[in-house]
Amino acid sequence: MDSIILGVGGKDLFAPERTSPTDSDKNLIRIVDPHYRCVSPFDLSVLRGDGVFEATTVWHGYPISLENHLKRLSNSARLMDMPQPNHQAFVAAINEVIAQYDDPEPAPLLRILVSRGMDPDTGIGKTNYGTPSVWMFLDGRGTLHDTAPITLTSLSRGYASDVTARAPWLLNGAKTLSYAVNQAMHRECRRRGVNDAVTYTADGFTLECPNSSIVAQYGDSLITPDPRIGILNGTSQREMFAWARQEGLDIKYSKLPIDQLREADRLFITHGGWVIPVSALDGRVYDVDETQVAGINDAIHSGRTHDDALSIGPLGAYEE
Amino acid sequence: MDSIILGVGGKDLFAPERTSPTDSDKNLIRIVDPHYRCVSPFDLSVLRGDGVFEATTVWHGYPISLENHLKRLSNSARLMDMPQPNHQAFVAAINEVIAQYDDPEPAPLLRILVSRGMDPDTGIGKTNYGTPSVWMFLDGRGTLHDTAPITLTSLSRGYASDVTARAPWLLNGAKTLSYAVNQAMHRECRRRGVNDAVTYTADGFTLECPNSSIVAQYGDSLITPDPRIGILNGTSQREMFAWARQEGLDIKYSKLPIDQLREADRLFITHGGWVIPVSALDGRVYDVDETQVAGINDAIHSGRTHDDALSIGPLGAYEE
Repeated sequence: MDSIILGVGGKDLFAPERTSPTDSDKNLIRIVDPHYRCVSPFDLSVLRGDGVFEATTVWHGYPISLENHLKRLSNSARLMDMPQPNHQAFVAAINEVIAQYDDPEPAPLLRILVSRGMDPDTGIGKTNYGTPSVWMFLDGRGTLHDTAPITLTSLSRGYASDVTARAPWLLNGAKTLSYAVNQAMHRECRRRGVNDAVTYTADGFTLECPNSSIVAQYGDSLITPDPRIGILNGTSQREMFAWARQEGLDIKYSKLPIDQLREADRLFITHGGWVIPVSALDGRVYDVDETQVAGINDAIHSGRTHDDALSIGPLGAYEE
Repeated sequence: MDSIILGVGGKDLFAPERTSPTDSDKNLIRIVDPHYRCVSPFDLSVLRGDGVFEATTVWHGYPISLENHLKRLSNSARLMDMPQPNHQAFVAAINEVIAQYDDPEPAPLLRILVSRGMDPDTGIGKTNYGTPSVWMFLDGRGTLHDTAPITLTSLSRGYASDVTARAPWLLNGAKTLSYAVNQAMHRECRRRGVNDAVTYTADGFTLECPNSSIVAQYGDSLITPDPRIGILNGTSQREMFAWARQEGLDIKYSKLPIDQLREADRLFITHGGWVIPVSALDGRVYDVDETQVAGINDAIHSGRTHDDALSIGPLGAYEE
C-alpha cells in the first residue's frame, strides 16, 4: 500500500512557455522511495530556509484549492525573486503524485516545497546553481486534520502594521521555508497550555496564525484581516468566504484590531482545506456550532465552494 | 585532493555526560562524499528552516573562535528549545573533518548545521523523531573571504529595540536556519548597488548585518551594539575587541543609534574569523586603513586574540 508518495521535481516545472504536458514529460517529476534522502546539505533550503512552499489536503483524490495554492506559490516566488512556477506543469506533477497514492485514508496532506536551489557560494553548489529544487509529497500517515475546537493565545509578531510596503525584504506575505519563528510560536502555545496562536502587530492589528488564517463571525458577517497588511492570502479562508456568500452572509476584509477580534461571536482558523472552530482566545470563550463547521468543511471538500473561491479577495485600495 | 569534506553527525554529539572522545566513537561523525544527498525532505531543516548553525574559517587547520562558536550554538539551541550540543564531542567531530582536508587553500570555510531532526508530523518523520540531525562541512572551493573594502546600506529590521525580552518566540539573538530574510536583504543590497547592509530597529538603534556584526571606531574607541538588544554575540567581533584591548584601545558595548553609527571615523564588519573594512554607509564615505585591517586579521588568524576573546562581552545590566 502506497501511503506516502514522494516526488522530486525537475527543471520543466519552471519552463516558461509550456503548452500541454504529455506522457513524455520525464522532467516534471520523479517518484522515489519516501525514505530516499534526496536533498543535498548544500541546498539553500537546508542552509538558509531559502524557498517557498504550499500545503493542502487531497480529499478523495481532489487537491483542495489547488489553483489558489499555485497562485500563492507564484506570489511567494515573486516576493522572493525566484523563478515563476509553471502552473500547468505543477498540476501535471501533482496529479502524478496523487495517482500513486493507494491508502484508505481519504484526506492525506500534500506538501509542495520549492527551494531556490543549490548554494552558489559553496564548492558543490556553484556548479549546479540556477534551477530551483522541488520536492512534493502526499502523506496519509502523518498528523492529519482534526476539527475539534481549539484554544488560542495571542502573540505579538513584533512588526508595525505599515512595515510591509516600507520593508519588502522582511518578506511579509511570502510563504517561505524559514518557519523557525512560526515553530517557536507553537512551542510558546504549549507552554501556555493552548493549542494555537493568533498574531498581531506592534500597533495592535490582527495578522494570522502561525500556519493558518483567522476568521471572525459577528452576527451574519464574517471578517478576516486584509492580507495587504503583510500576511498570507488564505486559501481555505477564501473557500470559507465562498461558502458564506453562498449562504447569504456578509464577508469583509479589514484592518482588524486584536481587541475587536476578541469581541467576535465565533472564531475560526482555516488551513489546508479545513475550517476549525475556536473555543477560546486569551481565556475568553466562544460559541462553537459543530454542525455549522461540518457544513462548511463539506462544502469545501465536495468542491461546492471552489469556483467562487477563485474570485474572492480584498477589493479597493488598502486602508493603511 | 580532498577540498570539500562533508560529515554527517551522530547522536553522540548530544550525549549529556561524555568524558573524553576515543577512537571508538563511531557515532560522532561519518565522513561521506560531499555529493551525497544525506538530507531527507521530511527533515525540519528543509520543511521549516528549524535548526541552528555556525560558520567560521579554518585557518591553516585552526578553526577560529571555535569555543565561542560552540557557546553560541548552545545559546541558539537553548533559545530554540533544542537539545544541548556536547562541546567535547563537537570538537572531536570537527577535528575529524579538518583532518580529512587536503587542499592548498589555507582558509576553507567550516559550516556546522544542526536541525531539530525529522518532522514528527509526517509519516516518515514520526518514527525517527527526537534526535537532531547534524551536517558539517569544510569547503575550500566555495566563495571565500575577501578583505577589500565594502559599501553598506542601512535596512530596517522592523522590530522595536525592546521586543526581544517581551517576545522570545521571535528568536532574536538565535542563529537559526531560517535565513530567508537575511538572504532577501542581500538581494536588496544588490538592487541598491552596495555590497552589504546594516540593520536597525524601528526606533532607530543599530543591530547587525545579515551575516556579520558591525563595529564602529571613534578615535581610540571601538563600539558595537550590545547583543542583548536581540542580535548575535559576534565571535569575530570579540576577537577584534581582544585585539583592540591588546592595542590599548577602548572597547564598548552600547545601545547605538544608527545616526551615531553613521558618524563613526571608521566602520568594520566582522564574520567568520575576518574583519572587513567599510568604505561607505548610505553614501557617507569612511577612512580605510588596509594596514590596520591586515594587522587585526593576522592577530585573529594567528590565535593571538583567542584567549582574550573568550572573556569579552557586555558587562553590567542592559541599558533598556
